[in-house]
Amino acid sequence: MNLRVPGPTPCPDEVLASASQQMINHRGPEFKDLIFRVTSNLQRAFETKNDVLILTASGTAALEAAIVNTLSPGDKVLAVVVGVFGERFAQIAEAYGAEVLRLTVPHGSAAEPDEVRQALKGNPAIKAVLITHNETSTGVTNDLSAIAQVVKEEFDKLLLVDAVSSIGALPLPVDEWRCDVVTTGSQKAWMSPPGIAMVSVSPQAWKAYETAKMPRFYLDFGKAKSYLERGQTPWTPAVSVLFGLDKALERLLSEGLPRIHENHAAVGDACRTGIKGLGLDLFPDERYASNTVTAIKVPPGVDAAALLERLRTRYNVILAGGQQDLSGKIIRVGHMGYVSIEDIDIVLDALQASLTDLGVVQAGV
Amino acid sequence: MNLRVPGPTPCPDEVLASASQQMINHRGPEFKDLIFRVTSNLQRAFETKNDVLILTASGTAALEAAIVNTLSPGDKVLAVVVGVFGERFAQIAEAYGAEVLRLTVPHGSAAEPDEVRQALKGNPAIKAVLITHNETSTGVTNDLSAIAQVVKEEFDKLLLVDAVSSIGALPLPVDEWRCDVVTTGSQKAWMSPPGIAMVSVSPQAWKAYETAKMPRFYLDFGKAKSYLERGQTPWTPAVSVLFGLDKALERLLSEGLPRIHENHAAVGDACRTGIKGLGLDLFPDERYASNTVTAIKVPPGVDAAALLERLRTRYNVILAGGQQDLSGKIIRVGHMGYVSIEDIDIVLDALQASLTDLGVVQAGV
Repeated sequence: MNLRVPGPTPCPDEVLASASQQMINHRGPEFKDLIFRVTSNLQRAFETKNDVLILTASGTAALEAAIVNTLSPGDKVLAVVVGVFGERFAQIAEAYGAEVLRLTVPHGSAAEPDEVRQALKGNPAIKAVLITHNETSTGVTNDLSAIAQVVKEEFDKLLLVDAVSSIGALPLPVDEWRCDVVTTGSQKAWMSPPGIAMVSVSPQAWKAYETAKMPRFYLDFGKAKSYLERGQTPWTPAVSVLFGLDKALERLLSEGLPRIHENHAAVGDACRTGIKGLGLDLFPDERYASNTVTAIKVPPGVDAAALLERLRTRYNVILAGGQQDLSGKIIRVGHMGYVSIEDIDIVLDALQASLTDLGVVQAGV
Repeated sequence: MNLRVPGPTPCPDEVLASASQQMINHRGPEFKDLIFRVTSNLQRAFETKNDVLILTASGTAALEAAIVNTLSPGDKVLAVVVGVFGERFAQIAEAYGAEVLRLTVPHGSAAEPDEVRQALKGNPAIKAVLITHNETSTGVTNDLSAIAQVVKEEFDKLLLVDAVSSIGALPLPVDEWRCDVVTTGSQKAWMSPPGIAMVSVSPQAWKAYETAKMPRFYLDFGKAKSYLERGQTPWTPAVSVLFGLDKALERLLSEGLPRIHENHAAVGDACRTGIKGLGLDLFPDERYASNTVTAIKVPPGVDAAALLERLRTRYNVILAGGQQDLSGKIIRVGHMGYVSIEDIDIVLDALQASLTDLGVVQAGV
């Protein structure tokens, strides 16, 4: 099977082998070595000196953690919403009593730094900005560097970043861009099974933590940090996922971030070029198109579910459909983590064949 | 290594092999089959017709989920505290604004049903009772059957059960005992890697959910249930842990609950008998001693850390120390899930040898 959804992503064999090791005591010396090494390697991959905390949970819990550890009920926040995951971030903040102002961008577009500037200028009470770096639901990457510049340099607000499907594949130098909380999940760029979320926490976020009143227990950053200091997690961690992540980080860092970023850029470009070559249209404005997930418009007259089913059952290629409002309108190719241009060629060939099978006449072919 | 801490517990090779399978699409048909099968098998293992929900998290998050999905800030609850995990359950309720009345029992004892009765009689505003079925920190099992009888038959309160280290090893027929929320974790009796929590939810708990006002998002039962209906989880699940759990459940159910329970009783008995045979004292009152974890008093003059270190480095046996107030005072042997009397014999031999190495004269030897 060629699993090309935007996560879980395929794991290299050596990662799966590492993840299949027998359990160890999570309060013992082997675990201490493991978590120290993984944490230190994550700091390198995040390009940060900030604390990096490991939570046993998926990326959504990391978003929740970013909010409940830095905010209080009634706090005003700006949520930059460019798709499903931006909306989710906003909804989590609302669930915990934040007052959420949404900057909503049409699907397929990215947020403009000046829109963020105007929203912050018009609402001086805003304490934090929530932003999705890479919006998996629409295949759009926000210009986080430019937006962070506005949020931090011009307004000095807390910057909480959903980097679930970006960091580790797309450049996101956490310290250089001054991101306060950056969240990701093991099953995205990290070539590992799902189950572990990783979160960086800046000194400014720790300052916010001191007065943050939203209730929390399992996801409490302070507990995670105090246990990490002795080489543990407060609660039993997903040990096998950490074994896998450990191996994947070794692989990722030995390849080096620049090459990893270049590879994702090349793969993203190959995917978009190939899609257009098949006569299909990209869903997002290409200026904002993501290098970790490509969203494709379903051609008129084609049933998206039938196309995905055909790809899966006949060609062993598993793509994702659209979510919520975009269901039936787009299909999505995930290309983050363990992926090469050859993998994309397989997807493109299967897409072409499936469309032919379904009787679609393709303009570009 | 002989890993004999109270979790993570060792996994059978076939479970590790299953957990090392390549990733699948968590929105696809293979996952649907997997989660339906795992859920249905969990219902059999829980002896319940209630919903069983799967959360990607550890047992502590399941305790948090039990609380935030059924209670509102200001609700009065009775927390039966017989050790560290009972206290944790109480603290989670407090973190979310519940008014917690504690029924605290000295370490090593269990709660008496009549104490629960008196507490409920004296505090009619109590909405829910939080109880640890098996207290891992002290090696004590509460008489949940009798306490549930009081809580449900006499007072009809919500009964939220921490069964993290009991169910799947000790008898806990959820429907027969009318437990409203029952929580456990994959790394305990379930012979699987950590990372998945499993929670059963009764109709009465669902009724409480409708009016429960504590904030929640990631751990929301309603979201988990609505996605489960279509064979999914709301957020990316720990797929590899589920692969392992799937295989472990197959193994557990083919052995059958009665034999599983008998085996744990026999192993617990063998452990206690052996410990006393070494001239060591059990920590808990033996009437309440757990069949999944045995807590042993550290003999006078023996340094607990040195003993654990000796066991580990010289005899490849990994036991746990005491937590919090009990640190240095007890050591603990985990014997739940994938365990036999032969495993206990290895522990006993290693303990005897280590104590001899440390120059301890043993009365019973």
